[in-house]
Amino acid sequence: MTRIAIDAMGGDYAPKAVVEGAVWAAMEYNIPIELVGKLYDIERELDRIDQEGLVVGGGIFPARKIKVNTKALDIKKTHASEVIEMGEAPGQAIRKKKNSSIVLAVKSVVEGSSDAVVAAGSTGAAMGASLFGLGRLPGIERPAIATVLPTMKGPLVLIDSGANTDCTPEMLYQFGLMGSAYAKSVLGIDNPRVAVLNIGEEAGKGDELARDTYKKFDENKDKINFIGNAEGKEIFLGNCDVIVCDGFVGNVTLKTIEGVARMFFYMVKQEFYRDPISKVIGVLVKPILKKMYAKVNYEEFGGALLLGVKGITVICHGRSSAYAIKNAVKVAYNAIEAGVNQSIASYYGEKE
Amino acid sequence: MTRIAIDAMGGDYAPKAVVEGAVWAAMEYNIPIELVGKLYDIERELDRIDQEGLVVGGGIFPARKIKVNTKALDIKKTHASEVIEMGEAPGQAIRKKKNSSIVLAVKSVVEGSSDAVVAAGSTGAAMGASLFGLGRLPGIERPAIATVLPTMKGPLVLIDSGANTDCTPEMLYQFGLMGSAYAKSVLGIDNPRVAVLNIGEEAGKGDELARDTYKKFDENKDKINFIGNAEGKEIFLGNCDVIVCDGFVGNVTLKTIEGVARMFFYMVKQEFYRDPISKVIGVLVKPILKKMYAKVNYEEFGGALLLGVKGITVICHGRSSAYAIKNAVKVAYNAIEAGVNQSIASYYGEKE
Repeated sequence: MTRIAIDAMGGDYAPKAVVEGAVWAAMEYNIPIELVGKLYDIERELDRIDQEGLVVGGGIFPARKIKVNTKALDIKKTHASEVIEMGEAPGQAIRKKKNSSIVLAVKSVVEGSSDAVVAAGSTGAAMGASLFGLGRLPGIERPAIATVLPTMKGPLVLIDSGANTDCTPEMLYQFGLMGSAYAKSVLGIDNPRVAVLNIGEEAGKGDELARDTYKKFDENKDKINFIGNAEGKEIFLGNCDVIVCDGFVGNVTLKTIEGVARMFFYMVKQEFYRDPISKVIGVLVKPILKKMYAKVNYEEFGGALLLGVKGITVICHGRSSAYAIKNAVKVAYNAIEAGVNQSIASYYGEKE
Repeated sequence: MTRIAIDAMGGDYAPKAVVEGAVWAAMEYNIPIELVGKLYDIERELDRIDQEGLVVGGGIFPARKIKVNTKALDIKKTHASEVIEMGEAPGQAIRKKKNSSIVLAVKSVVEGSSDAVVAAGSTGAAMGASLFGLGRLPGIERPAIATVLPTMKGPLVLIDSGANTDCTPEMLYQFGLMGSAYAKSVLGIDNPRVAVLNIGEEAGKGDELARDTYKKFDENKDKINFIGNAEGKEIFLGNCDVIVCDGFVGNVTLKTIEGVARMFFYMVKQEFYRDPISKVIGVLVKPILKKMYAKVNYEEFGGALLLGVKGITVICHGRSSAYAIKNAVKVAYNAIEAGVNQSIASYYGEKE
């Protein structure tokens, strides 16, 4: 049976939010969980939930408290004596801290106790632990982070969202293949349209990397459904299914989107508190805006998949709430069910 | 007296929108204009406006038609027999098409007939023509495009928004100095806080360029108010006044912001057309949303300044409406009045 290992110590609100999210996922989806972290902390949080109940709700759903008996849920607890902190150099940290929660969570997958890892701590550490623990899929030079974004038409895969800052055209091409496999297997998109993020649509646009990447994709049009360059403003039109870029640009793009969305809702709030009439309208508008916010809120998507490793690792936002963690568990579960890695492998096989 | 030269043939809706915007600016701000382009086209548009009137309005203002006598306005017309098209290689085009509207508009500034150029056509051609025609300011390796963005607190200068795709730490540092001079002279921000766009806040974050750029800024902290790295999500918090990045990242960021804003208003529209009750609320909300849209709409900002050349060039969005062109003329006028280039020069002098 599928089990998801969760780094209970990772994230700004860990272990509280992580343990709550894990319990919530175990209840809502009936997915077996393995919580990896300091046993004392994990048990304290579980006891608290048993005594105080669990606050569920998030996104468009109002928060409410429910009674939970965590002992009746399939939650395995694994002690990890160490924690990798956000500031630590990832490579060094995963080599030194062999008993850290993230390293042991990955180890659980390697040993077959669990089937996927969910991690909200240091992205670098989660990537490093996954890469060294699980190894790379055949034909993949470097793993990349795939984030699903909403567009005007449907979901879109942005790859790489931050794993690799210095890339080659070959790497970006591989991201394109992995993104296609993801869009196909998990999102159910047939023959996904792949575009390269650039500052103009023409082949000659952009920096050296962008121009060479265009060539690389263009030469392999029989293996991938390459539709050309796409500009930042086109991301949301829904005219492509996979957007490929290096991890620096991808990360800046992703965080810019987050920033714009936040400013937008800040502005809405301000406008609706300006005067009594606006306030009345604001009350009417609130549920509609909440529904919209849910559509663009990262919590709703839970986490991003690290593609290219021999296993499933879901990387969550550092500020992940219990709701985000719960949804990240679902992302991991869906990726396992959809067989995203088999899809990457077959994508390579089929198309080559 | 200050005169603004406008490339009448540049932009998706040229010459119509450009001539309308020029007439509008001449009326509203009482700024003398020089329209550079095919004389026949310019005169046809001016005649049309005289006969049919001019539609003004845009942003939060409702559109209305007003009578105009363009002959009573200070609008100089200069014939240009050639036009540089969007697809042309800029460097080659400006050398070959010496009688193109953009080259002659810049020439007008070089010869002292006008004081600034407003251009909505090919960004590369506007940059190239300005660089070769006007030359660089002392100490500046490469001109960069500075865009003003709204944040939760006040305006922010994003530099470079697309002029230079391959940059060095030295270039980015110069962008920081120019951005500071802009924020100080035009936006009136004292001792502007400068941040480098990166994927994390720590000094060691990002790609090689980002790490070396951090060092370069850090070593020159006595000359520039460097506050460290900033992530994409921080752009809108208003905690810094100038954000520095290379033109590739800047352009993707800018267009992503445009894309998110557009999707947002698309979503709002969809939500408010879902059912009769939502439609009623939608009518009430419309003016508030319009006000918000105006705050993030690129038309409101009109255009971006090309900094680092010996003159003022304002680069407009290709899709510029008459309203955007009118506002771009104001941007050019403000830059002249504020003495942004003197500020860059003195910034160099003062701080070195």
